[in-house]
Amino acid sequence: MPAMPDLPDHCAPLPLAHVYRLLNHGPTVLVSAAHGGQRNVMAAAWAMPLDFEPPKVAVVIDKSTFTRGLVEASGRFALSLPCAGQADLAFTVGHTHGGADGVGDKFTRYGIAAFEGTTPGLPLVAGCVGWLECRLLPEPQVQQAYDLFLGEVVAAHADARVFAQGRWQFDGHPALRTLHHVAGGHFLLPQDAVQGRMLD
Amino acid sequence: MPAMPDLPDHCAPLPLAHVYRLLNHGPTVLVSAAHGGQRNVMAAAWAMPLDFEPPKVAVVIDKSTFTRGLVEASGRFALSLPCAGQADLAFTVGHTHGGADGVGDKFTRYGIAAFEGTTPGLPLVAGCVGWLECRLLPEPQVQQAYDLFLGEVVAAHADARVFAQGRWQFDGHPALRTLHHVAGGHFLLPQDAVQGRMLD
Repeated sequence: MPAMPDLPDHCAPLPLAHVYRLLNHGPTVLVSAAHGGQRNVMAAAWAMPLDFEPPKVAVVIDKSTFTRGLVEASGRFALSLPCAGQADLAFTVGHTHGGADGVGDKFTRYGIAAFEGTTPGLPLVAGCVGWLECRLLPEPQVQQAYDLFLGEVVAAHADARVFAQGRWQFDGHPALRTLHHVAGGHFLLPQDAVQGRMLD
Repeated sequence: MPAMPDLPDHCAPLPLAHVYRLLNHGPTVLVSAAHGGQRNVMAAAWAMPLDFEPPKVAVVIDKSTFTRGLVEASGRFALSLPCAGQADLAFTVGHTHGGADGVGDKFTRYGIAAFEGTTPGLPLVAGCVGWLECRLLPEPQVQQAYDLFLGEVVAAHADARVFAQGRWQFDGHPALRTLHHVAGGHFLLPQDAVQGRMLD
């Protein structure tokens, strides 16, 4: 695997207490992992926060995926949040199989740039708007029965143009909006916002 | 508890194979349950699909909630998907504690109408745009360690004005858009959509 550059421009580290807010509004994520000189990336709409601090996450990783073996072997995985301008990338890595019996290294095959955060060797997807570096919390029973993987977030970063003061603010950056997959590559995009208030 | 009416207008049953699409784009949900003459409803941004068919879901329900005891005692829970016009309702049930040491029955206290689907006595929140009736899949270890509850969806319904042919279509119905909580009652709303295509 090629050497990876460091954090890109606009990428700011997040306080751990704000990490859940990256996933709170339900974006689709890219799950990536590396082990033994191999790496892969896949799309997952089934991911959510699991705790505030230390932040934890849950994500469903099917048995058929090449990524799953890399997660189990390395005990590490990353969630990168793709944006509207990356809809084709998200669709493509979600509809192809990596590894030797698939398209090989999807990063190489599709020209997807990766960078390294604080976890050595863990590839984060460049051009995304949020990144969570996770340590697997082994729960073999639910991994096997439900394909459900839990992780503790050890570091997280966000694109400071659209995530600041603990809030997503997409105004003026439509191509940086998070993707919310419905089905078949059809993604909804957040736009307006509403503020809830207490009922009497 | 008062007797509950049947399914409201616009509410159409969903084929089980389409149920995951209610949650796939990451909406905030209302979790409700009833047992022994008591009922409650709370908000949860931490919910996701867990399987296609039979459809399963995962949701985080904190130990401090009154709802959790009702879920554990009855083995049933419902997820209702609130819409933009219900932002105050979603915020309110997410920031109040039900039961005798809280505000009591939140449905009564805040004038929230409920109806009954196919699960006797399980309250679904009227005015929402999607509903999933779930049977708890007991996993005591993860319930205790992570507040994580898994369920199999036994029936689901959606507002046919905004969910048809297995897709959300909010055009012309801005008040019926799903809510996506960021923090502090600030909800993002889906608007535009983008179609991903395969990269070369």
